[in-house]
Amino acid sequence: MDEKKTSSPETAPIAATAEHNANFEENIRAIIRSGKPASVIRDDLDNYHANDIAEVLETLDTATRKRLYNILSLEMTAEIFTYLDEPAPYLHELGLDRAAAVLAEMDADEAVDILENLDPEEKEALIARMDQESKDDIHLIFSYDEEQIGSRMTTNYIVIPNNCTIKQAMRHLISQAEDNDNIDTIYVEDENGRYFGAIELKDLITAREYMKLEDIISTSYPYVYADERSSDCMEELIDYSEDSIPVLDRNHKIIGAITYEDIAEAIDDEMGDDYAKLAGLTSEEDLHEPLLQSLKKRLPWLVLLLFLGMGVSSVVGIFEPIVDRIALLICFQSMILDMAGNVGTQSLAVTIRVLMDEDISAMQKLGFVFKEMRIGFLNGLLLGSASFVVIGIFVHIMKQKSLFFSFALSGCVGISLLTAMVISSLVGVLVPMLFHKLKVDPAVASGPLITTVNDLVAVVTYYGLAEILLVDVFHLV
Amino acid sequence: MDEKKTSSPETAPIAATAEHNANFEENIRAIIRSGKPASVIRDDLDNYHANDIAEVLETLDTATRKRLYNILSLEMTAEIFTYLDEPAPYLHELGLDRAAAVLAEMDADEAVDILENLDPEEKEALIARMDQESKDDIHLIFSYDEEQIGSRMTTNYIVIPNNCTIKQAMRHLISQAEDNDNIDTIYVEDENGRYFGAIELKDLITAREYMKLEDIISTSYPYVYADERSSDCMEELIDYSEDSIPVLDRNHKIIGAITYEDIAEAIDDEMGDDYAKLAGLTSEEDLHEPLLQSLKKRLPWLVLLLFLGMGVSSVVGIFEPIVDRIALLICFQSMILDMAGNVGTQSLAVTIRVLMDEDISAMQKLGFVFKEMRIGFLNGLLLGSASFVVIGIFVHIMKQKSLFFSFALSGCVGISLLTAMVISSLVGVLVPMLFHKLKVDPAVASGPLITTVNDLVAVVTYYGLAEILLVDVFHLV
Repeated sequence: MDEKKTSSPETAPIAATAEHNANFEENIRAIIRSGKPASVIRDDLDNYHANDIAEVLETLDTATRKRLYNILSLEMTAEIFTYLDEPAPYLHELGLDRAAAVLAEMDADEAVDILENLDPEEKEALIARMDQESKDDIHLIFSYDEEQIGSRMTTNYIVIPNNCTIKQAMRHLISQAEDNDNIDTIYVEDENGRYFGAIELKDLITAREYMKLEDIISTSYPYVYADERSSDCMEELIDYSEDSIPVLDRNHKIIGAITYEDIAEAIDDEMGDDYAKLAGLTSEEDLHEPLLQSLKKRLPWLVLLLFLGMGVSSVVGIFEPIVDRIALLICFQSMILDMAGNVGTQSLAVTIRVLMDEDISAMQKLGFVFKEMRIGFLNGLLLGSASFVVIGIFVHIMKQKSLFFSFALSGCVGISLLTAMVISSLVGVLVPMLFHKLKVDPAVASGPLITTVNDLVAVVTYYGLAEILLVDVFHLV
Repeated sequence: MDEKKTSSPETAPIAATAEHNANFEENIRAIIRSGKPASVIRDDLDNYHANDIAEVLETLDTATRKRLYNILSLEMTAEIFTYLDEPAPYLHELGLDRAAAVLAEMDADEAVDILENLDPEEKEALIARMDQESKDDIHLIFSYDEEQIGSRMTTNYIVIPNNCTIKQAMRHLISQAEDNDNIDTIYVEDENGRYFGAIELKDLITAREYMKLEDIISTSYPYVYADERSSDCMEELIDYSEDSIPVLDRNHKIIGAITYEDIAEAIDDEMGDDYAKLAGLTSEEDLHEPLLQSLKKRLPWLVLLLFLGMGVSSVVGIFEPIVDRIALLICFQSMILDMAGNVGTQSLAVTIRVLMDEDISAMQKLGFVFKEMRIGFLNGLLLGSASFVVIGIFVHIMKQKSLFFSFALSGCVGISLLTAMVISSLVGVLVPMLFHKLKVDPAVASGPLITTVNDLVAVVTYYGLAEILLVDVFHLV
């Protein structure tokens, strides 16, 4: 942390953001408690970010909070409420009418996020108390399935007609900006209300008044339909990396926008799901989920894995005779199987990320498979050799076996490790590629299959090798 | 897909985005090949999104591409190049001078992303050819370690003095907007060039001329220092969910901005890393990484896991005598260990996500631990019972053992499964919580420890139970 001090003439705290944040929160608390007139408090608070005020709000007592609600403007309250982690109890404090007004003041998609987590009755009561425009916006978003783009869109966007002048466009912008602060990209519609194109705000601001509006409209600016599945077009939306992309209905009318914030949320959701799937959950869980729902997400994989495990068991059964003769063999089974599993999981994780992130050619795929195999081979060579030495010594000393027997046994373990690791790498890369090709999500399907194949390979190699080497070749038992 | 058709009067394609995109690309190709005058082609292409043009560019032959470079403006070329997946070969086509000009035209952070992936010599040659301002910006970003916020910031932002009028502020905005299109939030500095606050663009646009600029400045708008570690403040930046947050040096001078795009990238990186860690990689890998580097990321875990596995092996060794008497026992060891591992991984994945996403109280943690145990118990009860029945029948029929022996053995398997799954759930939730408390990343450290503990518990339960039940109680061997 020393380099920070040299770069600064002041005493620089280590966790600076946390520190100046704590200061902000202390200041906000002081303002609220100052006892100054409401209008002064309101102006003072206006200098702070709604997120910081929200953090403080959660720590106040109910009485102070209620006094604060009466001081804040509706707009400020709405902004602060979008930053609360669990807004429900605070909405109750506001009372139905004011809560409805606050929700109506928010962007419709943010209001929807909050409404979704309330009781159905409370939700209906709040929506019923809103103005018609907010009601319409909220119903529109609710009308889409959560898999559809429409459920993620915001109705906070600016739209202007295509047949106006630069000056008129600027006036349209100013009149709409009051309610819609998503103004980086301005959408344009034609005389029939159909999507015509988009204007970058910076182009409008820097345009000369004698220019034609048409000159700054991108008529082929990308768009997306509200009823498309998010998963089908999110990758593409990420590629455009735009602050906002218009959402159209099938009549080509603009009905919403997807912002970078929505996209970031989607990435987070998607990644979280993959993470969950790799761990054998059907989808991501959260803290507040009821027991049965969690059980339902976990059980399917476990059942499948159990039956695959029974399959492996019946194969292990074939090697009962050799274990019957050399019981010592069982000591190292778990180690070899675990290592095969670990290597396979590594290959799987890398492969899934590669398949997801990039469009790769057949040649690149082949190169990738070979690379994974070489990594498996090198890892196996290193770890197999280490095991040969360590286990040989261990068996000789701890189990009082002859030096020759000890190293013949540890040789079986070492060679099995090497073989299992090469094959696990190969399986860990080929199986997800195959599923990807078959358009089955590799993060879901690959895990169990890979574990099973790896277990089988490891078991057969290990006990098979032991039988050949220790019994047939060296006649050690 | 039928509901799409009903909602639309036109024939709606299934993958609509992909489809209208393909159309865009076809149109772009036609424009480039049209043979019209350069200025017409330039204006026509200006209607399209740079990302779509970039997609087409990658498919053209070199000659056409070189003709296109001469048609496009520097600004358009720069924008298109930020969307190329691998810009290096196309930069070569431009020649050093024009490539340097294109990079200088980009946002500095985007130029840095491209420069980072070039040879050091080429990189230096390009930077040397840039104008002083671009050089400075690029050197500034390069001066930060990749762990620091400064390496992620953009120098594309607008800053105005705090002592001007609304009208002057608007003029400042217009003059800077040409070069900086990150205009949603405008930063304000005081007469000493120190950060003073921020203005939402919508407030400036809708402000009346008689208002004071001060009224619309948030003087306590959040900020971050360039030398802070990204991981320390990224969570907080996400909480603000702002389009841009100013980045200051330790003299409180504004030197850059963090945008939502940067944050989304950081989320993606972070999640990808966790994903990798859960799979026993020290950090995320990509396709183009050299073999040795990949090996270095994978080997540390494997070595650790191998030695932990050897530890388990020596414990299994204790049970050699019972296996020597009932070799059949080994059939089900892999199944029980795998199931314990699977349940533990599920609990681990859920716990890590919960710990990361939410600030939870001690009470909530306790509730969460109990929930995980109940899930483990219910899963164990279901799967243990299933195993008892299926394995009992299997052993009786396939291994020709007595009915009593078969079900005594399968009873051991069932009870071991139940025990292993409850304890695995517990371990899978307690270990990451412990690491979290100790400020060690639970995604890194938990995996191996959990596997080892679970293996030990499962082995001891299974063979111990077999010894007690089959030998001591029922005297079956």
